[in-house]
Amino acid sequence: MITVTVWNEYIAERESEAVRTVYPNGIHGCIGGFLSEQADIKVHYATLDMPEQGLSEALLEQTDVLIWWGHRAHDRVSDETVERVKRHVLRGMGLIALHSAHHSRIMKALLGTTLNLHWKHDEQERLFCVNPSHPIAAGIREPIFLEKEEMYGEFFDIPKPDDEIFLGWFSGGNVFRSGVTFTRGYGKIFYFQPGHEEYPTYRNPQIRQILLNAVRWAAPSEKLSDNYECTAE
Amino acid sequence: MITVTVWNEYIAERESEAVRTVYPNGIHGCIGGFLSEQADIKVHYATLDMPEQGLSEALLEQTDVLIWWGHRAHDRVSDETVERVKRHVLRGMGLIALHSAHHSRIMKALLGTTLNLHWKHDEQERLFCVNPSHPIAAGIREPIFLEKEEMYGEFFDIPKPDDEIFLGWFSGGNVFRSGVTFTRGYGKIFYFQPGHEEYPTYRNPQIRQILLNAVRWAAPSEKLSDNYECTAE
Amino acid sequence: MITVTVWNEYIAERESEAVRTVYPNGIHGCIGGFLSEQADIKVHYATLDMPEQGLSEALLEQTDVLIWWGHRAHDRVSDETVERVKRHVLRGMGLIALHSAHHSRIMKALLGTTLNLHWKHDEQERLFCVNPSHPIAAGIREPIFLEKEEMYGEFFDIPKPDDEIFLGWFSGGNVFRSGVTFTRGYGKIFYFQPGHEEYPTYRNPQIRQILLNAVRWAAPSEKLSDNYECTAE
Amino acid sequence: MITVTVWNEYIAERESEAVRTVYPNGIHGCIGGFLSEQADIKVHYATLDMPEQGLSEALLEQTDVLIWWGHRAHDRVSDETVERVKRHVLRGMGLIALHSAHHSRIMKALLGTTLNLHWKHDEQERLFCVNPSHPIAAGIREPIFLEKEEMYGEFFDIPKPDDEIFLGWFSGGNVFRSGVTFTRGYGKIFYFQPGHEEYPTYRNPQIRQILLNAVRWAAPSEKLSDNYECTAE
Repeated sequence: MITVTVWNEYIAERESEAVRTVYPNGIHGCIGGFLSEQADIKVHYATLDMPEQGLSEALLEQTDVLIWWGHRAHDRVSDETVERVKRHVLRGMGLIALHSAHHSRIMKALLGTTLNLHWKHDEQERLFCVNPSHPIAAGIREPIFLEKEEMYGEFFDIPKPDDEIFLGWFSGGNVFRSGVTFTRGYGKIFYFQPGHEEYPTYRNPQIRQILLNAVRWAAPSEKLSDNYECTAE
Repeated sequence: MITVTVWNEYIAERESEAVRTVYPNGIHGCIGGFLSEQADIKVHYATLDMPEQGLSEALLEQTDVLIWWGHRAHDRVSDETVERVKRHVLRGMGLIALHSAHHSRIMKALLGTTLNLHWKHDEQERLFCVNPSHPIAAGIREPIFLEKEEMYGEFFDIPKPDDEIFLGWFSGGNVFRSGVTFTRGYGKIFYFQPGHEEYPTYRNPQIRQILLNAVRWAAPSEKLSDNYECTAE
Repeated sequence: MITVTVWNEYIAERESEAVRTVYPNGIHGCIGGFLSEQADIKVHYATLDMPEQGLSEALLEQTDVLIWWGHRAHDRVSDETVERVKRHVLRGMGLIALHSAHHSRIMKALLGTTLNLHWKHDEQERLFCVNPSHPIAAGIREPIFLEKEEMYGEFFDIPKPDDEIFLGWFSGGNVFRSGVTFTRGYGKIFYFQPGHEEYPTYRNPQIRQILLNAVRWAAPSEKLSDNYECTAE
Repeated sequence: MITVTVWNEYIAERESEAVRTVYPNGIHGCIGGFLSEQADIKVHYATLDMPEQGLSEALLEQTDVLIWWGHRAHDRVSDETVERVKRHVLRGMGLIALHSAHHSRIMKALLGTTLNLHWKHDEQERLFCVNPSHPIAAGIREPIFLEKEEMYGEFFDIPKPDDEIFLGWFSGGNVFRSGVTFTRGYGKIFYFQPGHEEYPTYRNPQIRQILLNAVRWAAPSEKLSDNYECTAE
């Protein structure tokens, strides 16, 4: 059984009618919803407005994979939350950072770069798999067409990924490393670009397959019960 | 001083008026021409119709970097030529494989995959650098626009590159890993997608800068004088 | 269900009493034996002296993961066998190359280098995991001590691995990249250094855990039914 | 001309007679000394006790490559210094972190992991090159023997390196990824394990060759004059 915590800042859905129409139960509700249909996955939901910003030590302790969606409120995520999440990633908790979560404080703390990029609203996207034997690409044999997405374009200031799985083509003339993995400590990280809040990206069956694959890939065989420390021999 | 051998099958330029108009001295003449303007580079030319297919042991012995352009006549390159070139790459000779040279026998022998891909004539291409600190990207700070190129699209069946430097965007809806590096033995390899024979790609100043950078990057600090052998201790 | 074919040249066990004592059912029998205890694994055995060198098209067609052990008879493996195996790896069949199989013709054809190295008999080895979140390292939390192994030492002439999982320390003063992965086409490859025929390495529980992990990791989610071809769009 | 700043916390040399005997002008003096003999290198020295901890904006602005040696006083390096250095690395300044600088705050901020490891004093080390065509390995064709070094052993908690160049063998039974590279933003990073303050490691001609190679490799072709920012198209 894989325990997934879906974290969402949960702001756009409350403030914007348009976003609420696309995601009436919140982006977290949509993602957690289809994941929880799987027999091997148990879902927790967490949002920024909860106590401890939704991410208590107790919850993280039992979380195998944390999915993160944030955009407008990156700055409101506290130092303590960032440190708690980072510690658990380094001990083995998987992290899936979606779309604008590239700019989340936890991604900056783990990757060390600015994660800056080029962007523009309302373009078409085509997603190509460049790593067909990677577990995250299982079942994805055709390019994925997204009628509307926010364009994210290179140069994307990330460290060299461990693996590059998807490349994005955008109608306005940009390309992007749209699906990439990293390892930090004992934890696996997947960054996946699609998922602007105004478009029904997380209802797309291929996108769902990728997220499901990513959850199973990122789940640790075993988390460390404590930090990995320096040891004198 | 870097000794560069520019090898070209040299067929399209002889058979097609259109190609000859673009490259009156052959593609090899165009590439070797601008490289030989550099004080630190000495150029040899070699073509398929020469004795030993232009690549004698003596020439390879003194070659630091071999540039390879081929398309229609991959099959005419002999086993002996492939083995000779491969042995020198493994000893440290740099190899720059251009455009349709992805399907050359030497690339297949070194990389082990089919190097198959999707393709189409007459598209626009934009080239993006995703690795700005790599020596091959020195001086390339803006995307490169090629008004006409042959589209090469993913999935491109290559091993995972050591480094990915350029991604190509094509107007018809494809992306491509257009500039990638590999190491085999002591030798460095750069594959670079632009350069269809009907278009003046090798006259583009940014493309020339990349090729020049690649030559300097691929040149070995020292070639092995013999093969690297198994050694009992 | 994962279908594993364990291929062994099966020569040393027949010619040497000492080796037969360690592996009375052959190295393939030992490896296939413990793998077949797993509910999700079905094992076929294949040896060099069988028709089609044990590797018919029909068998390869149904094989998810091919394990290869060879040493003295690399040269007897035919061009046809190499091409058949290579084609299936490129379509998605996993390949696990053990110990002296670094010099097998199939590994040379897939990797493109000499795979030469330094070697010596009768040393102690310690194996360290440098990639603890990789699936092949699942359950391996402590260094592995092998009282006797054949030393394989750097420089090991391989392409840059996709992932490096284990490093070997040898009592005589050498180190080795002992567990490394590659991808070729749709197929995953794991090379694992321990396993000299005179030592009971494949009875070691940690070594068995690694091989079992590797089988599950290398098994494709789906093999291509045909070659990946070039496509005009 | 490459401008190198050699930064040293400069504490052990002042407090310990034994260290002072090995490095009478400080570790920075020793390293800067041999580097400044090169016609293409200009050296600045900086130590923790200087104003702005030796690393003013003005000095970093003109620094192409920063060499960092620290051990006892990592905690005394201020947030401001770490941020200043990080910003310049992301703009293109090279960073060479030596020995116990694995635990420096700047390395933790750039790499995102604990950089924890195993350690022990007074072992013999042998350094093997596993990447002979890398510029940092130029001229290093034989294993390097260090009669005394501090053992650093795996698991070393670092992100997957861009390139792994040297592996260390230690007499007590450990191995280490002793020479590894990373990229962050536009800046190149080289971590190199040898260099405990009590041993004359930085007088070893092969070690000096590696540091010199690393300086030339890490020097940017051009630093950004400002941060790389997000851009709306």
